[in-house]
Amino acid sequence: MIIHLLPLFNSKRIVLASGSPRRQEALRNIGLKFEVVVSKFAEDLDKQSFASPAAYCLETASRKCAEVWARLREEQRSADIVISADTVVVLDGRVLEKPSSPADAERMLRELSGRDHDVYTGVCIRVRTPAGGSDEGTVRQFTERTTVTFAELSPEAVRAYVATGSPLDKAGGYGIQDGGGSSFIKGIVGDYWNVTGIPVHHLCAELAGLAPLL
Amino acid sequence: MIIHLLPLFNSKRIVLASGSPRRQEALRNIGLKFEVVVSKFAEDLDKQSFASPAAYCLETASRKCAEVWARLREEQRSADIVISADTVVVLDGRVLEKPSSPADAERMLRELSGRDHDVYTGVCIRVRTPAGGSDEGTVRQFTERTTVTFAELSPEAVRAYVATGSPLDKAGGYGIQDGGGSSFIKGIVGDYWNVTGIPVHHLCAELAGLAPLL
Repeated sequence: MIIHLLPLFNSKRIVLASGSPRRQEALRNIGLKFEVVVSKFAEDLDKQSFASPAAYCLETASRKCAEVWARLREEQRSADIVISADTVVVLDGRVLEKPSSPADAERMLRELSGRDHDVYTGVCIRVRTPAGGSDEGTVRQFTERTTVTFAELSPEAVRAYVATGSPLDKAGGYGIQDGGGSSFIKGIVGDYWNVTGIPVHHLCAELAGLAPLL
Repeated sequence: MIIHLLPLFNSKRIVLASGSPRRQEALRNIGLKFEVVVSKFAEDLDKQSFASPAAYCLETASRKCAEVWARLREEQRSADIVISADTVVVLDGRVLEKPSSPADAERMLRELSGRDHDVYTGVCIRVRTPAGGSDEGTVRQFTERTTVTFAELSPEAVRAYVATGSPLDKAGGYGIQDGGGSSFIKGIVGDYWNVTGIPVHHLCAELAGLAPLL
């Protein structure tokens, strides 16, 4: 959706406010050039105070974006565009975080086994307003949902996957792109990239809509 | 599904009868060790003679597998397991091949724009039968369907994508994993890996079922 607009976007200073290697890979894959400035926002919002997991991850993404935007302005190195994202895995309305231990990862995977769950990513894009606009720029934010169907997993498969170490740094205890995730998942409904951490199509559509402001 | 069975599978001689880098990557990703022996089957079956595109790609996969299986036996270097696959992109019941030219790729992408289409992969697995079995081994074959929803594409986006060269060696004129495909596709229903050329979950489930025969 922005492939023909890459010369325009790549003439701007774009910052990705995320340390996730999978998000960086997805953006590089579409041909965007960007700098990484990891947000210092504590990611400690109270989940219970939000109407839904989608609202929770959208607010986290929004705070990450605002923190990086403000810090760069303060340091006199404002970006033209800051992109942030937050991804949550949701089973029965409950958010599954990153596992706290290998045993916790096994427990999560046993819960996901043989069932559907939802993955939501909240995305926030902040764009520098043309001369005369506010310092806060123009903000676009949205969430994207992908439903993921897990096969029934044997205890042996779960143990072997957790032993690879891959589940330990991933929300919900799996990576759709790794050897375990790719073999455990029967199918999805929605954008694959959303499950890896960034909804590429929706992001590109929003960026294309912002192009006239640049 | 086979992550805990990898020591068993990797003690066998596995051959992938496909030169596709994307299929090789998917199998390496699940931890399988294998050799590549590209099939010499001409892939010239008459599509019209099959009841469906699924039946057509399954028969092509089956012939690829049989050719490699027989050739290796002839050369006295029989494999324990041969895996083959064939993938087709189907719009309105019509198979879209690899584009014959950049103009043909643009035409295909304009056809896919704003619509759903199906991707079918036929997979054939041939396993060496234990002592006393037939020389032909045991065969498992199946097809997997994934439905892909394209966004509306502007002529500029189509032209810019075709200019990257990526569409030219891909059935249907796109790669779901590249910069164009990942930004053009709103979502899918089914296995993502199936669209890249191999249905990883279903393949692993079939292999797990064959483990007792090894």
